[in-house]
Amino acid sequence: MIVDLQSYLSEKCILTDAALEEYLPRADRFPQVMFEAMRYSVLNGGKRVRPILALAACSACGGDENAAMPTACAVEMIHAFSLIHDDLPALDNDDLRRGKPTNHKVFGEATAILSGDALFALAFQTITDRTNGVSVAVILEVVRRIAAASGTSGMVVGQVADMISEGQAISPQTMEFIHRHKTGALLEASVVCGGLLGGGRPDQIESLRSYGQSIGLAFQIADDVLDVEGEQDKIGKPVGSDVGNSKATYPSLYGIEKSKGMALQAVGDAVNALRVFGSEADPLRALARFVVEREL
Amino acid sequence: MIVDLQSYLSEKCILTDAALEEYLPRADRFPQVMFEAMRYSVLNGGKRVRPILALAACSACGGDENAAMPTACAVEMIHAFSLIHDDLPALDNDDLRRGKPTNHKVFGEATAILSGDALFALAFQTITDRTNGVSVAVILEVVRRIAAASGTSGMVVGQVADMISEGQAISPQTMEFIHRHKTGALLEASVVCGGLLGGGRPDQIESLRSYGQSIGLAFQIADDVLDVEGEQDKIGKPVGSDVGNSKATYPSLYGIEKSKGMALQAVGDAVNALRVFGSEADPLRALARFVVEREL
Repeated sequence: MIVDLQSYLSEKCILTDAALEEYLPRADRFPQVMFEAMRYSVLNGGKRVRPILALAACSACGGDENAAMPTACAVEMIHAFSLIHDDLPALDNDDLRRGKPTNHKVFGEATAILSGDALFALAFQTITDRTNGVSVAVILEVVRRIAAASGTSGMVVGQVADMISEGQAISPQTMEFIHRHKTGALLEASVVCGGLLGGGRPDQIESLRSYGQSIGLAFQIADDVLDVEGEQDKIGKPVGSDVGNSKATYPSLYGIEKSKGMALQAVGDAVNALRVFGSEADPLRALARFVVEREL
Repeated sequence: MIVDLQSYLSEKCILTDAALEEYLPRADRFPQVMFEAMRYSVLNGGKRVRPILALAACSACGGDENAAMPTACAVEMIHAFSLIHDDLPALDNDDLRRGKPTNHKVFGEATAILSGDALFALAFQTITDRTNGVSVAVILEVVRRIAAASGTSGMVVGQVADMISEGQAISPQTMEFIHRHKTGALLEASVVCGGLLGGGRPDQIESLRSYGQSIGLAFQIADDVLDVEGEQDKIGKPVGSDVGNSKATYPSLYGIEKSKGMALQAVGDAVNALRVFGSEADPLRALARFVVEREL
């Protein structure tokens, strides 16, 4: 299978957006402002990297992508929830996200906090209510992994570690801790849960875990490099905002060139991890390269 | 069985506190401040009404209370998470909670927001990781109900509805909507999930649902009445703070005396709903009376 990645991404993106549209409550119900705020931050033209990873992992294991769609969308809701809270004045105090005003700029802080909370709950509702054609045991395992990757073993821990490290000289170990938790855990869980929902064998799941870990690292380094090199309209937030906040980044610790090399190394590791799969994992391989090529 | 409610409550409270202590990550891990903040708002000497309802419902159905303990604690974590976010400056802007400084007063807003998020995630981790002796199907059903009761069909919706109704003349229907979602849904889910984890038959679960709904109503009216009549040191927040914020309350819509009558009626309905149970539901009956007697 030769993957035309652009068509693949655009097809999966359209499917994911349609599912998100279906899973998100309509905004004609009381209290309207909350549902509007939830939809505003999810239905925003995002690239849907996490959902597409989940769908591609499901297919790589020979599963029906429909089985992974609710989980794919749940992960996107959790991602959106984390961005809403991250952008708040008490945290990063960002006014723009993907070129649009952040949630609290449009709906106010209180609604932003609570609509984030509601998206987090909706993620678990979506997995438990919408998943079909998979055993109850697999669904429960997915809930377990998504909860762990979001909370005290994942994303939120990473956000706190990032926050308290601001303006400090931090070690490579601390930066790795931050990124592994803040972005890595949920990316890895997206891939692994996609595989579980696709009926993956234990050796396939272990490959996907390793792939997910490497792609998470590549993604973060590429993001850091883009923040230094990118143009404002490309990412929709002021260039260098992480530097302005004295956030720990790969370029600030290792320099741009070494960081690019590390990202490419991580992409190589991700592709290598997929050697138990045949051509059915080509989209995952192409995605690994895309993660850095879009930016480096 | 004659229930000495005070000993019963104190015994269950000690068991719940011990389980919460075990389930909450210790605060000697990085990032320490987040784990400290989570523990601060959960291990605070609360009355553990929701967990005790779950344990009592489990026993009423003939189950082993240990099967319900992780869910009982999960509900308490979600309750604590909601209070942390509710107290934030952007929402109720409360400085005191149960006589102690609120989470953001001690740890700062950013940590308060994120430690609330972490408690929400930990709730689902606790249910999925710690529940033993129950089928996977029941655990998944519990996750489904707790997620729904917390999010877009429950608590958070109620918080938003409450917030946007502040300072407005609202109808009895809107006030009922707020309370049924903001506090009622999670109380009801505590009781129902306790019953499910105790192996309750469908007719028992339906009784528990009806009991939970009535006790939720009684609890809210009693809370509103207490806010008007209570003394500051009894509840640990300034008396009349809801009135100061122009929040919708039963006394403001119906007057104190009629509100008390409505609370007693709801307690009667709760006790009536338990008629399919024998003496094994006596703690639930005593709890229903306690909810209003502590305050009315």
